[in-house]
Amino acid sequence: MLADRLWHDCRLMTMATDRTGSGPGHELGIIENGAVACQGGRIVFAGPANELPAGLDARERIGLDGRWVSPGLIDCHTHIVHGGNRAREFELRLAGASYAEIARAGGGILSTVMATRTASEDDLVAGALPRLDALLAEGITTIEVKSGYGLEPDSEVRMLRAARRLAEARPVTVVTSFLGAHAVPPEFAGDADGYIHAVCRRQLPAVAADGLADAVDGFCEGIAFSPDQMALVFDAAGALGLPVKLHAEQLSNLGGAKLAARYRALSADHLEYLDEDGVAAMAAAGTVAVLLPGAFYFLRERQAPPVTALRLAGVPIAVATDCNPGSSPLTSILLAMNMAATLFRLTVEECLCGVTRNAARALGRLREIGTLEVGKSCDLAVWNIEQPAELVYRIGFNPLHARVWRGR
Amino acid sequence: MLADRLWHDCRLMTMATDRTGSGPGHELGIIENGAVACQGGRIVFAGPANELPAGLDARERIGLDGRWVSPGLIDCHTHIVHGGNRAREFELRLAGASYAEIARAGGGILSTVMATRTASEDDLVAGALPRLDALLAEGITTIEVKSGYGLEPDSEVRMLRAARRLAEARPVTVVTSFLGAHAVPPEFAGDADGYIHAVCRRQLPAVAADGLADAVDGFCEGIAFSPDQMALVFDAAGALGLPVKLHAEQLSNLGGAKLAARYRALSADHLEYLDEDGVAAMAAAGTVAVLLPGAFYFLRERQAPPVTALRLAGVPIAVATDCNPGSSPLTSILLAMNMAATLFRLTVEECLCGVTRNAARALGRLREIGTLEVGKSCDLAVWNIEQPAELVYRIGFNPLHARVWRGR
Ligand SMILES: [Zn+2]
Ligand SMILES: [Zn+2]
Repeated sequence: MLADRLWHDCRLMTMATDRTGSGPGHELGIIENGAVACQGGRIVFAGPANELPAGLDARERIGLDGRWVSPGLIDCHTHIVHGGNRAREFELRLAGASYAEIARAGGGILSTVMATRTASEDDLVAGALPRLDALLAEGITTIEVKSGYGLEPDSEVRMLRAARRLAEARPVTVVTSFLGAHAVPPEFAGDADGYIHAVCRRQLPAVAADGLADAVDGFCEGIAFSPDQMALVFDAAGALGLPVKLHAEQLSNLGGAKLAARYRALSADHLEYLDEDGVAAMAAAGTVAVLLPGAFYFLRERQAPPVTALRLAGVPIAVATDCNPGSSPLTSILLAMNMAATLFRLTVEECLCGVTRNAARALGRLREIGTLEVGKSCDLAVWNIEQPAELVYRIGFNPLHARVWRGR
Repeated sequence: MLADRLWHDCRLMTMATDRTGSGPGHELGIIENGAVACQGGRIVFAGPANELPAGLDARERIGLDGRWVSPGLIDCHTHIVHGGNRAREFELRLAGASYAEIARAGGGILSTVMATRTASEDDLVAGALPRLDALLAEGITTIEVKSGYGLEPDSEVRMLRAARRLAEARPVTVVTSFLGAHAVPPEFAGDADGYIHAVCRRQLPAVAADGLADAVDGFCEGIAFSPDQMALVFDAAGALGLPVKLHAEQLSNLGGAKLAARYRALSADHLEYLDEDGVAAMAAAGTVAVLLPGAFYFLRERQAPPVTALRLAGVPIAVATDCNPGSSPLTSILLAMNMAATLFRLTVEECLCGVTRNAARALGRLREIGTLEVGKSCDLAVWNIEQPAELVYRIGFNPLHARVWRGR
């Protein structure tokens, strides 16, 4: 067989756990002298170089001088499509401005909603590209992008179209989530129920008609929507055959994770205030816990998510940037890993699984991406490091040597 | 007059406070429609474009499309020259290893000392360059580099030679500090006084003879050296005409900052446990407070430095990466600013002053660098931002458009 490309003289983090026993590095599926071959954008071999089939050659052979190769990284929770930024609000708050003063100066999530509503689709794409490029420069090959700053049909559709267009502008896989239930917009002030009705009856059908949403998300919190309101959105998603996920238990415990688990959600995200019941429900449902330490850091939160309980219950843990202008203006998945380790005490292995295998699971794409296994998309990140832990240990340093998306 | 280069169509953060009144942005010395001209590597004009002298033209004119220009950034506290890294120790600690287990696995500062002692000068340069390059990519034009992992004459000299060589390898100004009094090496275990004697009588003369140290530093802490021991080092520095600085009040209050002020130190650094007496002493001596939020973050400290007291007392505040393998493997000055704002509540203006004007002061170089003023070195950073606050607000994002060192 003649493959398109063969990478050799490298060490692999396959992230596949079936073949490397249970010793140190088990979760990373480490192969010390490895090779990866690609044909038509898919992996046709990933394993020890000495197990390469005798008949397998490649049009192009790329020696990597012993470098490490991981699956391309996956940022499974972002809001990178949005208008404006909130730097001025950040500045005012540090200078001691009150919330009322900041609101008068046009701060808060509604300022992002206004900036997003007045932005054209081209504006939204152009604004997101520098953020996307920063993430691609760190080896990201798949990114989730949410709507949720339009909060009316046209703007939600425009956000998701912009998200899809990112995948035309750059070599990256984009997975979208419709997040109409992100906040109550001004025209529904005091009528969250009425707004949820509009989300289910007007926004969601508009978005789904064009195949713009790969999943449906929401923000379940005192300042946003109740579990009962979110259940209505999830029911509407289910009727359209769309999987769900949820921002849950970030600032308080409303039982959002349990609700998500009841709907077999792909993921429940944030989870600082998750309780034992929620952990058990997620474990039973196979719902991924997506931890977002960037928001925890930026908001100076004190209560970390129950990592030990999640670990003991066997809930898969993912890590993402939550890149958004209000609570996590973070465009580094490597830094998200360092924060998950430093602030939440995830292990190095958990961090690395969290931006590969478990992030793929959080997107319902584990069959396609997230590990180096035959049949999956050949998405790779090649690193100038001596050991995998360096990807988590360093702060503000990018050792990426090369990024490969669908074999090139 | 024909200058070498003229940058125009730009907004300036001159960081010079004498000409822009006391309104918003006062501390940044903002000029909305500015120009900078350079001759022989020095600034010959920096101000409003409409104040450009009629006879001033330039061989090369560079339009910046309205971008922002700041002084080149200054990282005034780093340990970027060192052998090895501590990623393995980081990994073990997260996996629950005890301190004894980590020590057995070769962890702790002594592991860096061993790796540094066995590294050649070429090794040290090669190891530091990727870290330096990460900082240069963010607009750094001056960097301070400390010794302190050799802890015997030859290795301390080798570290400082490697630091000087960084300035030959890259277009950057390197300022060195001799940090023999960093830790007690194993051959002096239990005899800190004996080691301090060796620092003063053997290391410091060796280093000073070759002009390798621009200042003398120390680590005043329960786990390192007492104020009395540091006073001996400072006396030896003074006898050689070298200015001093000090790692002080990081983990406890030993009165290090007061000692530093007594010796008219350029800076006292860390300062989490600084008390009112220390603040007053620093203010009276003009000693700069260098805040190092990367170490605070990485070590998960709880007590922030007394920013309000420093502010009220008029102590100049600088911000640096403290880049080092054990407690701050941070190679981003932009992230250091974000951490100073997020974790220490510095304002945007304080952060930006902290990596320019006040960082220059912490190095005793304010006459040469740190602001855009006539006669200073033409060190510039050109930014793709709409407002200065974006440099502090974003996390893990680098909007540098261009870097200029000594006019090119
Ligand atoms: Zn989110
Ligand atoms: Zn230091």
